[in-house]
Amino acid sequence: MSHATLIGLVAGALTTLSWLPQVLRAFRTHSTGDFSWGWFAMFGTGVAIWLIYGLVGDAPAVAATNALTFLLVLGLCALKVRHGRKV
Amino acid sequence: MSHATLIGLVAGALTTLSWLPQVLRAFRTHSTGDFSWGWFAMFGTGVAIWLIYGLVGDAPAVAATNALTFLLVLGLCALKVRHGRKV
Repeated sequence: MSHATLIGLVAGALTTLSWLPQVLRAFRTHSTGDFSWGWFAMFGTGVAIWLIYGLVGDAPAVAATNALTFLLVLGLCALKVRHGRKV
Repeated sequence: MSHATLIGLVAGALTTLSWLPQVLRAFRTHSTGDFSWGWFAMFGTGVAIWLIYGLVGDAPAVAATNALTFLLVLGLCALKVRHGRKV
């Protein structure tokens, strides 16, 4: 594993874990008020394109981080659809 | 500019702009309740390391995006220090 990939994985872990408390709170309280559909669309699209960037640009750290983040975003989306009323 | 860099810049613009509403609201209301010090430490460190990753790994899109994001985080930090009481 190259130094750059290692650095990227550390950075990715920090930036992804930094919004885990918000995500966990949403799952615990079934309330997705913090996350507007506009935010989902923009952030989700951005993360998806970072994933493509990571794959196309042979940047495994970027790909891995954004794959995980994308899964979190999908989970939140499902939560918002199911519990939309509580926004 | 390579395709990968172009893809990265689009992704970076989306993910950075996606949390601009929260940042602008904080500046407008002088309230940084959305952003805990724990989040600042983790997210700020992660973004700084992504910046290093972008420079070390010759990934200009990653470097540019995270340089901008880091400036936003610094601005929010300054706001939180000045208006901390309103949290």
